[in-house]
Amino acid sequence: MKVKGFTASAVQAGIRYKDRLDLGLIFSETPAIAAGVFTANKVKAAPVLLDIERLKQGKAQAILVNSGIANACTGEQGMEAALSVSKDLAERLEIPENMVQVASTGVIGEPLDVEPFHSSYTQLLGELSSDGFDDVSRAIMTTDTVPKTSYKTVSVNGENVSILGIAKGSGMIMPDMATMLCFVLTDAQIVFPVLKQLIKAGVDQSFNRISVDGDTSTNDMVLALANGAAENPWIDDENPEGKEAFSAALMEVLKDLALQVVADGEGATKLVTIKIKGAREADGAMDAAQTIANSALVKTAFFGEDANWGRIIAALGRSDCFFEQNKVDMYFDDVQLVRNGVAVGGDAEERGHKRMQEDHFTVTIDLNDGLECAEVYTCDLSVDYVKINADYRS
Amino acid sequence: MKVKGFTASAVQAGIRYKDRLDLGLIFSETPAIAAGVFTANKVKAAPVLLDIERLKQGKAQAILVNSGIANACTGEQGMEAALSVSKDLAERLEIPENMVQVASTGVIGEPLDVEPFHSSYTQLLGELSSDGFDDVSRAIMTTDTVPKTSYKTVSVNGENVSILGIAKGSGMIMPDMATMLCFVLTDAQIVFPVLKQLIKAGVDQSFNRISVDGDTSTNDMVLALANGAAENPWIDDENPEGKEAFSAALMEVLKDLALQVVADGEGATKLVTIKIKGAREADGAMDAAQTIANSALVKTAFFGEDANWGRIIAALGRSDCFFEQNKVDMYFDDVQLVRNGVAVGGDAEERGHKRMQEDHFTVTIDLNDGLECAEVYTCDLSVDYVKINADYRS
Repeated sequence: MKVKGFTASAVQAGIRYKDRLDLGLIFSETPAIAAGVFTANKVKAAPVLLDIERLKQGKAQAILVNSGIANACTGEQGMEAALSVSKDLAERLEIPENMVQVASTGVIGEPLDVEPFHSSYTQLLGELSSDGFDDVSRAIMTTDTVPKTSYKTVSVNGENVSILGIAKGSGMIMPDMATMLCFVLTDAQIVFPVLKQLIKAGVDQSFNRISVDGDTSTNDMVLALANGAAENPWIDDENPEGKEAFSAALMEVLKDLALQVVADGEGATKLVTIKIKGAREADGAMDAAQTIANSALVKTAFFGEDANWGRIIAALGRSDCFFEQNKVDMYFDDVQLVRNGVAVGGDAEERGHKRMQEDHFTVTIDLNDGLECAEVYTCDLSVDYVKINADYRS
Repeated sequence: MKVKGFTASAVQAGIRYKDRLDLGLIFSETPAIAAGVFTANKVKAAPVLLDIERLKQGKAQAILVNSGIANACTGEQGMEAALSVSKDLAERLEIPENMVQVASTGVIGEPLDVEPFHSSYTQLLGELSSDGFDDVSRAIMTTDTVPKTSYKTVSVNGENVSILGIAKGSGMIMPDMATMLCFVLTDAQIVFPVLKQLIKAGVDQSFNRISVDGDTSTNDMVLALANGAAENPWIDDENPEGKEAFSAALMEVLKDLALQVVADGEGATKLVTIKIKGAREADGAMDAAQTIANSALVKTAFFGEDANWGRIIAALGRSDCFFEQNKVDMYFDDVQLVRNGVAVGGDAEERGHKRMQEDHFTVTIDLNDGLECAEVYTCDLSVDYVKINADYRS
């Protein structure tokens, strides 16, 4: 799991958590082309605001990330803290200050103490290694139960290119970039506009299709750094073959990470794909899928392994998707539960219940009214979700 | 708790539940002026479709209501069932068929067996009594833990008028008429357009301001019957004094019932008022209040009595409400937690936590950006909510 020209490390800085990794650094030996996608929430954390500004130059060389404190709703002091930690780091790395991207995840509203950062830098820089990415993936966990990485190599015009993704996220997950951090590192040579285009399209097809609880966060970001160390022929619009190969591999990495995030949804016991087919309009199909994926009643039925398709129809009915009730078909995997809007009957629910006992199953709704479709990934709402979130800070 | 000219009864029909009241009848001795408000869900249960059609005449004389089976997503068979039970009842009551309103609540998608209805009518009619409303309020319970009634008498131009409300609802509660039944009976003399106007306005200010889980239902309705037995001067637009007195009393009954419903939210341990002040636009204020009221992360923090105002700000940030982060103030009852978008600090969170230990507290957010405000009522999301909804059908 190495990417040419990138090193990483993580330390126990004691920012909020004790005796665990909570501060990570990713470093590119040379300036990298960089692009990002950031939270749609109107309340943006200080690191998000700073990164958006700095990324206008399309370049970055280091990512500094901490867990424990989100540095959101922290006012001027929060921005000063983000500036202070990145300035000190830049000096030690001997790179321009604005080549540092910062990311934070954790509790909103508590001030970020910069001391643990400054006193950790000697160790953090000393331990930079091409094997350090696993440590970073652990340092960014909050309520995550497992670290999340995805790695792929792909031939781009005959040259081997590596793509490494690191992500965190388990609560506050919802389309539109909800509490989630993801760093994508590649040694590909790729021009900025194409990297930006591919990362945006990739996020739309991956992280923006998952949902844990419908809440979005102040700190979400996907950052992609491409340092060109692979020396492949430049990926740009004049190189469709290379672009296609890289794009497909990038998509796999992003989708893999997105599914890891939703499968690790707070308290989740199963991953459920919600698929809408035969819709008249694409927007409607997506809204239907998301409304179902976010319904507390649907998700508790998933947890209870109750083939309660009525709750799914009710959620469909309050979405912004047009459909005719008497045309609706519904399946749990291959088991049809609803035909023309009414129960199939017989042992269908019993067989549907069996499919729900799997770790992963798919609910397919065919509206039989058009050609548009949409797919989102969700998880169940369990007793543990409530326990985790009621106790999170205590 | 009597209303002139109205009688009611309930029996154990065994529609789905055993050994409990599950079928209720409300009867007006004379044809009553009638108006209703129905679910906004695109999937409407057979009784909803039938009632909407019949209410076009602005009159009704009987309400037949069952729990256990929603008679939703039941296709033609469902409509035939609703027609069959109301036809038989009308014949026995010797009233026109279209003077019967039907209402159902319970599981979606299972067929409604009409036999238990037909075989219960002799007893149901035999037990009609002016004291029967308590029994009806119990017969319509599903996951409700307590029956819900509200009663008020008011002087309308010197004549005593009674208003009795009966409601059910505890899950799938959300603005826009979510799973909830409410019957309002009054002996007032009131013209149809005014009754319709007042019931619509009343629902907007009461049931459309509460939220348990953001899910809406296929079966919701508020039905109001006014039989004129009080012989008060007609309430119409030429009688502003009478209209005002009646309207105020009706609003009290509706708001009382709405708060009973949210306080009995599935698994709820506390009632929370979400108040938005100082918004630039009224729609934005309402969207902000509803987004916060429906946030799973906010509601689990309420359950955990964690003064986690950061989750509230994050929910505000994903709403459609304009605000400037550095102007936002937040209070839990009288305790200010946030000033100008950042934590007040000191012992504010500890004092906020104390307020959360009460059965009812208010979260006030002042955006300091305008004159508009909005208020909604919600409850916490508890471990029991999940248990209730995971186990509901088993």
